[in-house]
Amino acid sequence: MAHIEIAPELPGILGLFAFRAETAGPLRVLSEALLRGPSPLSAAERELIAAHVSRLNECAFCFKSHAAAAGALLGVGAGIFEQFSNGNLPQAASPKLAALLTIAGQVQRSGTAVSAEAVAAARTAGATDVEIHDTVLIAAAFCMFNRYVDGLGTWAPSPTEAYLPMGKLLADHGYIEPKG
Amino acid sequence: MAHIEIAPELPGILGLFAFRAETAGPLRVLSEALLRGPSPLSAAERELIAAHVSRLNECAFCFKSHAAAAGALLGVGAGIFEQFSNGNLPQAASPKLAALLTIAGQVQRSGTAVSAEAVAAARTAGATDVEIHDTVLIAAAFCMFNRYVDGLGTWAPSPTEAYLPMGKLLADHGYIEPKG
Repeated sequence: MAHIEIAPELPGILGLFAFRAETAGPLRVLSEALLRGPSPLSAAERELIAAHVSRLNECAFCFKSHAAAAGALLGVGAGIFEQFSNGNLPQAASPKLAALLTIAGQVQRSGTAVSAEAVAAARTAGATDVEIHDTVLIAAAFCMFNRYVDGLGTWAPSPTEAYLPMGKLLADHGYIEPKG
Repeated sequence: MAHIEIAPELPGILGLFAFRAETAGPLRVLSEALLRGPSPLSAAERELIAAHVSRLNECAFCFKSHAAAAGALLGVGAGIFEQFSNGNLPQAASPKLAALLTIAGQVQRSGTAVSAEAVAAARTAGATDVEIHDTVLIAAAFCMFNRYVDGLGTWAPSPTEAYLPMGKLLADHGYIEPKG
């Protein structure tokens, strides 16, 4: 049961967005800037960083949502969960993305855990300053979103299939709620 | 030395904001919503939550900046650092804020570390659902800001006095950069 009274039919961050519109707006705009805004990293690469960090933080709702979004963007659908569940990085990870995911994993532990070696390895694999910046900020942001979702005790559907329509929606339309 | 090439004269998050305007805007708007927007928590209470979490994350720049902002808002100036450095909660903390700072400390560890007991204790001390929500989200957000600032290896002035003018600025004008 959630720690505060939110609409029981809305899982994860959706119930929190409905509870507090004043903060939902800026959080949606930030998500859109980080995951869909101008960046040398593709939307799929950024969703994979988000899913990877959420998985390390054991945030089921965020992991499954953003893995599903990555699966939709990559055209592999539910196959993305198999790629994650075999304990390997998704097959979509290029050497550059693999190096960036290492940095993201360090950010998940602590800001000060990011090593000069990991940054140098990312550069050797072709990463630019902007790509390193965006990776660190996306990883840091999911340390926020994951804590927000779990810190208020929201619920998450269990079957990965339940996340595929949302993944498709996020892949097609991003994070800003349509006006209506 | 920072992990990416940023303006060397700008410490902490300021160099990162200058490096990447595309994400600086949404991050400033989020800060303003969280720390100055409509909330039953005062601006000083919210700055104390931000400073407390930043201190637990050992992010010197964020801790000193937000402690200085709280000091300015409370009219105690640099005295806020003594209150923090004696290892106790700031004297400004009411029983309600003390209970909310306990929740914030749990969020700093992990979203799933937030206990029903800590939430119940905050309620007993008078906290509402919105205050518990805002506490969790502010604490989570500083787990992002702290990782962003330290994950990219930015520098921070060491003397606490160096943060007093910025604290005053944040207390008087908030987080949205003036246009002009």
